[in-house]
Amino acid sequence: MAPAPTFLRITTMIVRERPNAIALLLALRGSVVPEILPHIAFVALFSVAVAALSHYQLIGLQSLTIMPVTLLGIVLSILLGFRNNASYDRWWEARKQWGQMVNEIRSLARVSGALLGEDAPARRAILMRALAYAHALKGQLREENVGEDLLAWVSREDCDLALATANPADAFIAQAGSLLGEQYRQGSLDSMGLRMLDERLAALSKVQAASERIATTPLPFAYTLLVHRTAYVYCYLLPFVLTGSMGWVSPILTAVVAYTFFGIDRLSEHLETPFGRAPNDLPLDALCRIHEISVADALGDVAPAPLPVKNFQLQ
Amino acid sequence: MAPAPTFLRITTMIVRERPNAIALLLALRGSVVPEILPHIAFVALFSVAVAALSHYQLIGLQSLTIMPVTLLGIVLSILLGFRNNASYDRWWEARKQWGQMVNEIRSLARVSGALLGEDAPARRAILMRALAYAHALKGQLREENVGEDLLAWVSREDCDLALATANPADAFIAQAGSLLGEQYRQGSLDSMGLRMLDERLAALSKVQAASERIATTPLPFAYTLLVHRTAYVYCYLLPFVLTGSMGWVSPILTAVVAYTFFGIDRLSEHLETPFGRAPNDLPLDALCRIHEISVADALGDVAPAPLPVKNFQLQ
Amino acid sequence: MAPAPTFLRITTMIVRERPNAIALLLALRGSVVPEILPHIAFVALFSVAVAALSHYQLIGLQSLTIMPVTLLGIVLSILLGFRNNASYDRWWEARKQWGQMVNEIRSLARVSGALLGEDAPARRAILMRALAYAHALKGQLREENVGEDLLAWVSREDCDLALATANPADAFIAQAGSLLGEQYRQGSLDSMGLRMLDERLAALSKVQAASERIATTPLPFAYTLLVHRTAYVYCYLLPFVLTGSMGWVSPILTAVVAYTFFGIDRLSEHLETPFGRAPNDLPLDALCRIHEISVADALGDVAPAPLPVKNFQLQ
Amino acid sequence: MAPAPTFLRITTMIVRERPNAIALLLALRGSVVPEILPHIAFVALFSVAVAALSHYQLIGLQSLTIMPVTLLGIVLSILLGFRNNASYDRWWEARKQWGQMVNEIRSLARVSGALLGEDAPARRAILMRALAYAHALKGQLREENVGEDLLAWVSREDCDLALATANPADAFIAQAGSLLGEQYRQGSLDSMGLRMLDERLAALSKVQAASERIATTPLPFAYTLLVHRTAYVYCYLLPFVLTGSMGWVSPILTAVVAYTFFGIDRLSEHLETPFGRAPNDLPLDALCRIHEISVADALGDVAPAPLPVKNFQLQ
Amino acid sequence: MAPAPTFLRITTMIVRERPNAIALLLALRGSVVPEILPHIAFVALFSVAVAALSHYQLIGLQSLTIMPVTLLGIVLSILLGFRNNASYDRWWEARKQWGQMVNEIRSLARVSGALLGEDAPARRAILMRALAYAHALKGQLREENVGEDLLAWVSREDCDLALATANPADAFIAQAGSLLGEQYRQGSLDSMGLRMLDERLAALSKVQAASERIATTPLPFAYTLLVHRTAYVYCYLLPFVLTGSMGWVSPILTAVVAYTFFGIDRLSEHLETPFGRAPNDLPLDALCRIHEISVADALGDVAPAPLPVKNFQLQ
Repeated sequence: MAPAPTFLRITTMIVRERPNAIALLLALRGSVVPEILPHIAFVALFSVAVAALSHYQLIGLQSLTIMPVTLLGIVLSILLGFRNNASYDRWWEARKQWGQMVNEIRSLARVSGALLGEDAPARRAILMRALAYAHALKGQLREENVGEDLLAWVSREDCDLALATANPADAFIAQAGSLLGEQYRQGSLDSMGLRMLDERLAALSKVQAASERIATTPLPFAYTLLVHRTAYVYCYLLPFVLTGSMGWVSPILTAVVAYTFFGIDRLSEHLETPFGRAPNDLPLDALCRIHEISVADALGDVAPAPLPVKNFQLQ
Repeated sequence: MAPAPTFLRITTMIVRERPNAIALLLALRGSVVPEILPHIAFVALFSVAVAALSHYQLIGLQSLTIMPVTLLGIVLSILLGFRNNASYDRWWEARKQWGQMVNEIRSLARVSGALLGEDAPARRAILMRALAYAHALKGQLREENVGEDLLAWVSREDCDLALATANPADAFIAQAGSLLGEQYRQGSLDSMGLRMLDERLAALSKVQAASERIATTPLPFAYTLLVHRTAYVYCYLLPFVLTGSMGWVSPILTAVVAYTFFGIDRLSEHLETPFGRAPNDLPLDALCRIHEISVADALGDVAPAPLPVKNFQLQ
Repeated sequence: MAPAPTFLRITTMIVRERPNAIALLLALRGSVVPEILPHIAFVALFSVAVAALSHYQLIGLQSLTIMPVTLLGIVLSILLGFRNNASYDRWWEARKQWGQMVNEIRSLARVSGALLGEDAPARRAILMRALAYAHALKGQLREENVGEDLLAWVSREDCDLALATANPADAFIAQAGSLLGEQYRQGSLDSMGLRMLDERLAALSKVQAASERIATTPLPFAYTLLVHRTAYVYCYLLPFVLTGSMGWVSPILTAVVAYTFFGIDRLSEHLETPFGRAPNDLPLDALCRIHEISVADALGDVAPAPLPVKNFQLQ
Repeated sequence: MAPAPTFLRITTMIVRERPNAIALLLALRGSVVPEILPHIAFVALFSVAVAALSHYQLIGLQSLTIMPVTLLGIVLSILLGFRNNASYDRWWEARKQWGQMVNEIRSLARVSGALLGEDAPARRAILMRALAYAHALKGQLREENVGEDLLAWVSREDCDLALATANPADAFIAQAGSLLGEQYRQGSLDSMGLRMLDERLAALSKVQAASERIATTPLPFAYTLLVHRTAYVYCYLLPFVLTGSMGWVSPILTAVVAYTFFGIDRLSEHLETPFGRAPNDLPLDALCRIHEISVADALGDVAPAPLPVKNFQLQ
Repeated sequence: MAPAPTFLRITTMIVRERPNAIALLLALRGSVVPEILPHIAFVALFSVAVAALSHYQLIGLQSLTIMPVTLLGIVLSILLGFRNNASYDRWWEARKQWGQMVNEIRSLARVSGALLGEDAPARRAILMRALAYAHALKGQLREENVGEDLLAWVSREDCDLALATANPADAFIAQAGSLLGEQYRQGSLDSMGLRMLDERLAALSKVQAASERIATTPLPFAYTLLVHRTAYVYCYLLPFVLTGSMGWVSPILTAVVAYTFFGIDRLSEHLETPFGRAPNDLPLDALCRIHEISVADALGDVAPAPLPVKNFQLQ
């Protein structure tokens, strides 16, 4: 009997089952709590100081109402909501682009087989360039040296040629384009065939340009300033506003509110640059492995295993 | 006289007429109430306990105002609103992708008829691969063994070849691509014709890559944590805030508010992964049947009936 | 002198000039008021009862504040806003799809004239299939019997063949595809020409798949439940909250608030399924007439008049 | 030395430099104030009357709180926000479509030069049809008689033929399509060349269908009713709510709030129909002139000057 | 060993590492604070005056509640949120368009190499036109004279020809189109090849039309008026509302609230016109340099270095 088809699982980021409610409340991995804990602690301490001053009647806060923070709330909610949406859109667009790369490499494999023949050396050479492109782009986006890894797909000579240019990932696409040009001039491809294959390369080039755009164009810095300042003023106003009616409970509430504000602020900041190695970043290593599997299946090679999850996380 | 055209109805999920207002208030099927009932009950009990402590003056809550929950409300509404929109977008994008599959398979049938002839064996073979692809993709997305089902469309040999790869759905597309390559080399298709048919396969491949992206990339885990924690803190603060002015009515109100928060939270979680078999998931079985009907109509075979609704629900 | 170009006006739905402010306040046509009036009346009566009980001091409501409804307001505004946007997007997407059909049929007419010759019988046959497709799709989406209407465009034989399939609209597209295949095999079209014409058919097929998706995939039922229940609880809580401070004015205010909530809820429900014959639904009859005009102009036939507005409304 | 490249400036609508803060507060042109002034004045007078009745103790308003308007605020903000976004999206989509027309006409000029030769009479004839199309579409969208203007681009005979059809703009596209068909049958164009040029015509046809969609499909009328009624009830409730605590300041505040609500309501209404001649509508005349300049540059004719700004406004 | 691939970094705008919390609070570069400082100062002074008048009991403000500003808050949050989103969308779309230019120029280089041969003079001539186009478009969008810079890419003769037209950037695209036409008529390109290369030119033309649309179509002026007026009224109402309960703290709070409102207003205004040289505008110089690098790599020329960051900022 045929084996069950196994689903090529590329779970990103934090990999685990939905934990129960209490575990969720205590989870630290993938949470932004560790990073913002000092800020929360400082606000809470400040709030304790204000409560103490008020308790010993060194300052009088009875008359203060919630009004000031309500007024700031309008802009703060616009800014936090906007920044959160914009950052997530960047993260999700980055994931879509790399998801499209999956599809384009599979189609490149399929069409090159139909046009050039499944065993044509040019087909293998082009697909290997596509894999080198993916790995080089990963390296460029993460600012990591992937020079040695590339030798699994291309000769040292071709690799050195690419690394000598300003943009190695694009150089591998250009090499694939040159191979297509050769096939065209030799008559193995007509202009329609050239177009069909080049469309795939153009799509890969588009993925690269979009990835570069996301990696290198942060949200306008003025947003970061405006959000950051408004959130800080808000949180440091809270003790004055809360102490009058809440007394010693005020520091706890201040800390909880600061957690939500600093938390959403920090999370937005993480998602804004989705190509790193932080817990919520995109698993580019695992996606590159998907490409390797697609190409190996298409060429009849032995496909490598999908990347394992380490520490609840894919890279 | 000509019979009335019957509309190919693919109602998803919970299938029923709009019930009247009271029935809507009491409906449980398709509702998330059963799942979140324990959480609501627990919050309500907690609220009863707080009310009792306050009633017997073991704790004093008179001075507490609604301020604390108002402060949390800003971030909570941003987070719940965002997560709800993001989850629904994933669900709707998944539906769009599978809706595009409907269209691509119909166009594959039409174009292959025009180019290869309506009775060409290669046409039938390619369309059968498309059906096998759809069923295999369904199996992969739902992590179900559909190995036996595939034999209705492809020979055991071709099926085994596909199941031996890491990605059977893609393997069926690749097989269809090989068949196109054969026709091209035999001269039954020119390069333009090859392109027209391969465009359809590329579109199917795109649907697969998009489905894999949605199935394997959940929302960043930090969102789940942030939403979950803020909603819990909010609901467990409520009894303290409400008891002072509401007394024994407080547990009821707390339960109602908890219902809305936990309800929207849980619903987002369901829609985030739209390919399962839960009540609000997409009816992939019914959509695969649509493909079978399209192909049968195109090949002049007897079309199977659309899938019946069971238990108010399509699968 | 040349006559003024008359603009092909396809005003949808309720057709009238912007009325003055008072007329707007009283308008009933196109309004959802008649449908939700019973619900509003019931809430208002309930509120009168609560006010009476409070007036005769059978229940004490003085201590109740606006807090409970404020708490529910967060989720209610998220849900109503989301549902409203999602429903409108569906309605507008449906309109866009049918607007694209306008464009595709015009382009099919233009390109077929250039490729096959303006008077080629095959051109007329293909365009007639496109009209039959539009009418059949309209019938399928509205679940109306349009069998007899189709005979204006295709022979009874072709019509019966299409109606014998599970999806007559798609069958007409398939018939047009067969006609293209014939032209291709006869040499009247090269593969590039076949592609140019088939692209239009593929676009029509895409419009159909998108229309079917919208018609058959409602919003997840859990949303309807969650919105409905929260809105009802909200409105039935209002009398308790308002009576204390407002007394006998409370029923009026309750009715006004209920009008806005039930109104937006019902409107969303209407737009969710845009293909019916309700006042705010899309005027598919008028759009089909646009197609007829486009084809008649292209073939040099006498174009029918645009559909008249009946009762301030297009069908 | 080469002259500075002058930028083809198509500033839309109200053209002026950012005025200083005080000028902005007083500006009337482009503002919606003049239109809504009567409504604001009436609400303010009503508020004065309420304040007078209250001042002379003919009615008692002390007990009324802000609650009623807060309750209406939820739905009102959803509705105003939604309507504003939807109207702006229509306006911006209309601008995008007409911006794409710029691009398509430039590409039509470029490609026709490459394929047919820069001086081919057919090239000029086709480009003139494109200009006639743009002017005819402008006339149809604005319901203005542009019959005489068209004679600048096409012969009276061709013009009359187009004006005799139900849709002159489309007729000019069809005439261009016929010219392409002639070139194809004469062998001056192969099928690939025909496709390249027809793609541009198809894109122009798409712009037309989208413009017609926007011009003829207003937002569902029920929205207008719901927004209008809620805003009116809100504003006429305000005096009752404000007079108790604000006294004679109440009419001023009521007027200010009414200004913001009626202002955003009226602005949405303007943007909903972006093809007219109101101050915030799209400058179709100026855009048509851009097309004329593009075509003149391409044909080596003397390009006309961009349209001047009149009264701070482009048409 | 191969050198590490260096990532082509195009960081836009303000370039620096995430500063620590205190530095963020004090940063001025990239902030909009300097521009809006006078407005904030004036509101604060006004608030001091109101507080003084109230302190010396020249006016009585005790009875005023927060109600008036709450009422304005609804529309203000809709307007500020909308304007912020719309402006950012324009900025991001502009960045996307210029990012696509990166990709199209790379693909133009690749495909022209495959079709015409890597060393064909026509290839170099076409790519140089693409660079001249990018620089000319930059000049047109920024209204700067870039006439002399263009001579690095094209001969003075070709440059003068382009500058003599109304739209030099488009003229360079047209020149490239003419070169393609020559190759086509000489037989070096078949119609398919012509199409592949012209598609890239059409895409560049689309980038131009979109850039022109963004540069020349501001948001409807009525929005600026409505936002501006509402924000001013809001801020100048604040002192009256706050002084009663806050006394001398009121000016500080007023200034903080004014900072957030004027800040988001001014930031929106900056992003609305993204092609200038302000701190948050797009670095068109750096993007043009990217194109130069891509072309140099493709032609085997020595690639220039990426533009350095000056003063924490790219141009």
